[in-house]
Amino acid sequence: MSRLSDLMSTVFARRYSRATEPDRTGRSIEELCEALLGSSGEVSGMILARHILDRYAALDDNGKRGFFGFLTAQLGIDAEAVRTTLAAFEATPTKATYRAFLGASEARRQELARRLNQVPGATGQLVEMRKDLLRLMRDAPELAVVDLDFRHLLASWFNRGFLVLRPISWESPAEILEKIIAYEAVHEIGNWQELRRRVQPEDRRCFAFFHPSMPSEPLIFVEVALTRGVASSVQNVLSEKRDIIRADDADTAVFYSISNCQEGLAGISFGNSLIKQVVADLSRELPGLKTFVTLSPIPGLTRWASETGSDLPDNSPEQQCQRAAHYLLTAKRGDGAPYDPVARFHLGNGALVHAVHAEADVSANGLAQSGGAMVNYLYDLSLITQNHERYASKQTIAASPEVTALARAAQKTAV
Amino acid sequence: MSRLSDLMSTVFARRYSRATEPDRTGRSIEELCEALLGSSGEVSGMILARHILDRYAALDDNGKRGFFGFLTAQLGIDAEAVRTTLAAFEATPTKATYRAFLGASEARRQELARRLNQVPGATGQLVEMRKDLLRLMRDAPELAVVDLDFRHLLASWFNRGFLVLRPISWESPAEILEKIIAYEAVHEIGNWQELRRRVQPEDRRCFAFFHPSMPSEPLIFVEVALTRGVASSVQNVLSEKRDIIRADDADTAVFYSISNCQEGLAGISFGNSLIKQVVADLSRELPGLKTFVTLSPIPGLTRWASETGSDLPDNSPEQQCQRAAHYLLTAKRGDGAPYDPVARFHLGNGALVHAVHAEADVSANGLAQSGGAMVNYLYDLSLITQNHERYASKQTIAASPEVTALARAAQKTAV
Amino acid sequence: MSRLSDLMSTVFARRYSRATEPDRTGRSIEELCEALLGSSGEVSGMILARHILDRYAALDDNGKRGFFGFLTAQLGIDAEAVRTTLAAFEATPTKATYRAFLGASEARRQELARRLNQVPGATGQLVEMRKDLLRLMRDAPELAVVDLDFRHLLASWFNRGFLVLRPISWESPAEILEKIIAYEAVHEIGNWQELRRRVQPEDRRCFAFFHPSMPSEPLIFVEVALTRGVASSVQNVLSEKRDIIRADDADTAVFYSISNCQEGLAGISFGNSLIKQVVADLSRELPGLKTFVTLSPIPGLTRWASETGSDLPDNSPEQQCQRAAHYLLTAKRGDGAPYDPVARFHLGNGALVHAVHAEADVSANGLAQSGGAMVNYLYDLSLITQNHERYASKQTIAASPEVTALARAAQKTAV
Amino acid sequence: MSRLSDLMSTVFARRYSRATEPDRTGRSIEELCEALLGSSGEVSGMILARHILDRYAALDDNGKRGFFGFLTAQLGIDAEAVRTTLAAFEATPTKATYRAFLGASEARRQELARRLNQVPGATGQLVEMRKDLLRLMRDAPELAVVDLDFRHLLASWFNRGFLVLRPISWESPAEILEKIIAYEAVHEIGNWQELRRRVQPEDRRCFAFFHPSMPSEPLIFVEVALTRGVASSVQNVLSEKRDIIRADDADTAVFYSISNCQEGLAGISFGNSLIKQVVADLSRELPGLKTFVTLSPIPGLTRWASETGSDLPDNSPEQQCQRAAHYLLTAKRGDGAPYDPVARFHLGNGALVHAVHAEADVSANGLAQSGGAMVNYLYDLSLITQNHERYASKQTIAASPEVTALARAAQKTAV
Repeated sequence: MSRLSDLMSTVFARRYSRATEPDRTGRSIEELCEALLGSSGEVSGMILARHILDRYAALDDNGKRGFFGFLTAQLGIDAEAVRTTLAAFEATPTKATYRAFLGASEARRQELARRLNQVPGATGQLVEMRKDLLRLMRDAPELAVVDLDFRHLLASWFNRGFLVLRPISWESPAEILEKIIAYEAVHEIGNWQELRRRVQPEDRRCFAFFHPSMPSEPLIFVEVALTRGVASSVQNVLSEKRDIIRADDADTAVFYSISNCQEGLAGISFGNSLIKQVVADLSRELPGLKTFVTLSPIPGLTRWASETGSDLPDNSPEQQCQRAAHYLLTAKRGDGAPYDPVARFHLGNGALVHAVHAEADVSANGLAQSGGAMVNYLYDLSLITQNHERYASKQTIAASPEVTALARAAQKTAV
Repeated sequence: MSRLSDLMSTVFARRYSRATEPDRTGRSIEELCEALLGSSGEVSGMILARHILDRYAALDDNGKRGFFGFLTAQLGIDAEAVRTTLAAFEATPTKATYRAFLGASEARRQELARRLNQVPGATGQLVEMRKDLLRLMRDAPELAVVDLDFRHLLASWFNRGFLVLRPISWESPAEILEKIIAYEAVHEIGNWQELRRRVQPEDRRCFAFFHPSMPSEPLIFVEVALTRGVASSVQNVLSEKRDIIRADDADTAVFYSISNCQEGLAGISFGNSLIKQVVADLSRELPGLKTFVTLSPIPGLTRWASETGSDLPDNSPEQQCQRAAHYLLTAKRGDGAPYDPVARFHLGNGALVHAVHAEADVSANGLAQSGGAMVNYLYDLSLITQNHERYASKQTIAASPEVTALARAAQKTAV
Repeated sequence: MSRLSDLMSTVFARRYSRATEPDRTGRSIEELCEALLGSSGEVSGMILARHILDRYAALDDNGKRGFFGFLTAQLGIDAEAVRTTLAAFEATPTKATYRAFLGASEARRQELARRLNQVPGATGQLVEMRKDLLRLMRDAPELAVVDLDFRHLLASWFNRGFLVLRPISWESPAEILEKIIAYEAVHEIGNWQELRRRVQPEDRRCFAFFHPSMPSEPLIFVEVALTRGVASSVQNVLSEKRDIIRADDADTAVFYSISNCQEGLAGISFGNSLIKQVVADLSRELPGLKTFVTLSPIPGLTRWASETGSDLPDNSPEQQCQRAAHYLLTAKRGDGAPYDPVARFHLGNGALVHAVHAEADVSANGLAQSGGAMVNYLYDLSLITQNHERYASKQTIAASPEVTALARAAQKTAV
Repeated sequence: MSRLSDLMSTVFARRYSRATEPDRTGRSIEELCEALLGSSGEVSGMILARHILDRYAALDDNGKRGFFGFLTAQLGIDAEAVRTTLAAFEATPTKATYRAFLGASEARRQELARRLNQVPGATGQLVEMRKDLLRLMRDAPELAVVDLDFRHLLASWFNRGFLVLRPISWESPAEILEKIIAYEAVHEIGNWQELRRRVQPEDRRCFAFFHPSMPSEPLIFVEVALTRGVASSVQNVLSEKRDIIRADDADTAVFYSISNCQEGLAGISFGNSLIKQVVADLSRELPGLKTFVTLSPIPGLTRWASETGSDLPDNSPEQQCQRAAHYLLTAKRGDGAPYDPVARFHLGNGALVHAVHAEADVSANGLAQSGGAMVNYLYDLSLITQNHERYASKQTIAASPEVTALARAAQKTAV
């Protein structure tokens, strides 16, 4: 039944995704927005909302700039009204005065977005709208206030509790698989045959979060290799010629690629939840899995080495590992957080630096960003909370004894 | 695939709906809330949220009053902060100043609710929480401010665009059907056999809205009879002995019962959308359907007649119809809206008063509230917008010539 | 997608389950059958088949007797043709001669049944037809040859490889659950509340086999209690007041009821496969389960005791157990197989007699058939093949040392 | 629920598709077959069947020839037993004598195939086995008797009533779509982008029949273009640059490609049923569709023209059409049936020759087989039975007046 309902919602979304006929009243998109905000009921709201979304979709960048300018200038807050209603609420804190304050202190563009979102399928279009906004904001910083309102609403709508985890496999719909190809951001997927190698064998898995209102659009996905022992080379993981093992025989799950899919959801974080739910689900399905690690790039290593004058092109694998360990454990930004962005993500999630490998990603990109080195971050459920808390409160970086030793060795030999 | 995902979300919801182990830190629910609001990331947020929901569920009414009092007093807005951040934003309207204002002007209990809602399955528990709040507010009006925040969030989460329409049939899961029995609010369903008569025959339909995060909980449902001609008696509609017709032979869809299911969603309206989507879907499935009407109670008639001294117990069916028409077209509340609540709902949706019938609901309840009279409201898609606008702007009540004539006759004979 | 296809097949089955218009040619059902067998292609075959099934459904018992008589007399084999084609094949064993022999040696009624089965939904009607046949055969043994052909075809169509195992739960469609109520043959289900207690709690399970062409009709189902330790009383299992345990805490699965649903499939056995697949699936889902036993009636005990003069109404629980053990291990039919039909089924499957309990089924029926005694048959996957082979070859009954000892004690005390 | 069951059956099929451990008894595949046929119950049958299928899969062609030779020689009928049991049945036609005859007259390899088919997933392997057999039979005609038994069983199992029609779209699983690419036999699909153009736009449809035991294997599929007016060029239909129309605006459904997928099901016909069910389903979904035609190749035209010395390479489009019409209406095989195989198929289904087009398939293959001409066969539901009957009884070819006139013109001008 749920399946049917999902289908219906999809069919419905399509059926209503184009207004059956254009608005013939000659009103501008801004006038339509005002009409929608003024609309007393739901009767004509859905049609108005549909027209506004259609009209927006037809705008060029100039038109979009104008529209966002309108949202900035006309649908913001009225400071005077905020002050007045706040004073009234302070004087007599009742339901009525609080309601007036709530109305005044929220920008009208939030209510506009909620009313646009009544239309089935609109959520995805609002995400696209924010993607436009983020792009146009770069040259128009005054639009940033609109983005804050968008982000506030989207964070509420894309709350973890509303997301659904789906396995992605060779049985998944082609329309979703082609998006996996398109959105893969770490280790490119060249074509459908390469995709198949990542999702079809029983020792390869992929999982994505979806929002029920965007059933064909993954929000974020992770690719997992089930292995015996911890993988130390992404080329081995992706090799055409590798031996496929039985899922039941694996003892380790290696998260070798995580990609965010929706630029319009920038700043709304799904990765931590995704990894942890996949760890939980795989543990349950395959009790033989004992170790959950990533096989991650070290994107800042070369740059940092170059900035700090510590790049030594011809060092041995051992030295490369020492240098990578040293970098991961000691290289910091101005605010004290790790220099490496991927490290910040996994350490913030409560993972620890488990192992480093030289010659682990010998692609052009891998060599360029880290001289081919990669790192395993370990998700050990029994340590995650403690790691996270120490990291959050004191920026302490958890690491295995081996990595700590490598980093020390690096300091001694002044890598 | 969607089906699987739905199932997963259900299974997941159950698996995580009880915290695997209680919070052993000895903190109060209020301290747990502060911890959740302070939590820097998602790592321990999910577990904290789970503990708070568990703790809440175990509270008695006194405990709940205390909890809502805490939300009122401690997690509201800080007026001084609102003023300061507002002034800063007015002085320099930047992203940073606006972010500060947004933070200050929203009660912290909204963020608390959003964080609680991270837990799969939490949405339903938050709806239950509001149900408690609405009940306890009756004796504690100061809690109403909390309710405004709850309602604001729930209206955003239960936005029309997120709802899914599902047909309810004898193929539906028993766990949903038992809720249809429980929630039916207009014409009671005594047992499973009566339910079957309402959902299994091909000329009986039922549709409900669901939210993806509460897949086993209908939000609102409507029961429909497919008939030849407009039904004029609900006992005929529900009769065990009636002849079942082929759906393809029906020319009329009669909406004879609409029930809201979730007290915790009071004030968030789904009925208008539900009726209109069902009209759209049935039209498409069964092109033979030409007329979409309700068969509705007139719950205020007897009371109004008694208040206005116009009740004449022994009048003829003709006189009853005149009186009902007169009531529906002329009886008003102080604010000028129709006296009858069901009339307000359908007229507000853009329906018109199509026909009135005496002896149409001869149940004890039907006789008590309207002397047995019922009314058909007609949903004519070509007139809905116009009807709605006239009603919204001038409180004009649209009615068929027959009903208008009956109402006039009533005035002449001074019923 | 599969879900949709299933639905479609259901919808399709319904849409075409009534011929859109009756056959107006005035032909008898027998003439229609001859036309269908003569039909050169599929073009009119589907319509003819539909008419024949409709016509059959409208027959009374006399008409059905006539129809089956026609199948017996007119659509059997032509012995002369068998002989001729056989001789030709022997003389020149070619494709052509073998094809002729195949055609001659199969009764034409088999081809008729296959052509009837072209109609979506027909399979269930053919099963119903055999149910009629089995009933009418009792007074008309000459029809038995028709039944052999029916059974041959149905055994091929209801091959284990085509069956689908589905869990039955409180989320199952009402139209299936009402059949579980109707078909329960061991421990009656009085109403929907009792049903709910058997399928909703997490320590109660139910599984059924379905055939894809009869998606709303269970073929056989088994009810399972997940327990700590082996259950010794069916009243305890079914008690309203029992404590529900977590499925993960159970160490034992007790199969306390198995019911065949389709009389028209009599003689086509599903029980053995069902039990073994449920054992396999539950083992996988709940690794904590270590023991799989039945809690079975001993339906022949009282009758046998009465026949052998060994019934002693007032004996102690200990004596009752001894007597039951003695009966199960030694009471035989003329052919050497166990006297007890339930014992024959489970021992034939490779189970062993694990334990006997007095006062285990104190319902009127339980007391009448076995003085309240019940038995656990143990399905130990490591012993099943060996048990089965010894039973099949030498009628050896496998039993636990405890039961063996009880049976010996019974003999000593000459129960 | 059905969806789940489908998934389960898939999962189950995979889980059991490899025997968990090999048969270690050292028996030959023939000995295993004898053991399976002798097996008294289901207990060890499933495991034996699994081992036989595994063993077969590992055979090379010589081994397979040996296996089929065993089926031919050892598992056929025993003529003497047929004669004896037939005589006994003639003498005393009872259930027992008929059962004995049934047993003797059916080759034991049929029972073997049924027992192999107990294993989930085995059906597809048996289809593959027959594919091998058809190939090896070419050089070993004595194996044809085995094929007749296989075909008999498969025709019963792949009965129309067991097949499920599924739409194939861009939402279909990749594992099914890749088979559409592989199995397309008429107008090649070069890659995933071309596939997408055939299944994603709303004016392009694809439908396939599936068997529930082979849920990822289409049996036959048809590709449909929804158009305004009848399409006269397949390159236009497949063009990248064509305009997509709304499905609701189409008045014609053009079946431009039909492909059988399973060589192992050769001789078991699905095409007629497929076309007619698709016509029925599309009619219902899109009431605007008034015309259902094919756009078919004329594969025998060039060969026939060459054989009859009537090929005139440089004739005009008009002359080409005349010649094609003449060919379709008059060229016959020795048995009086149309010379053209595609014509035989559609005319046998009750279609009529509606129109012929020159320059309709200008691919290398199209030019080679028919000089680029194509034909529309019209499926007019009101004429199908009549057309079919006239064709079946008198080999009358139904054609439109236009095509008849073209054919006549061809004869006059002695094309």
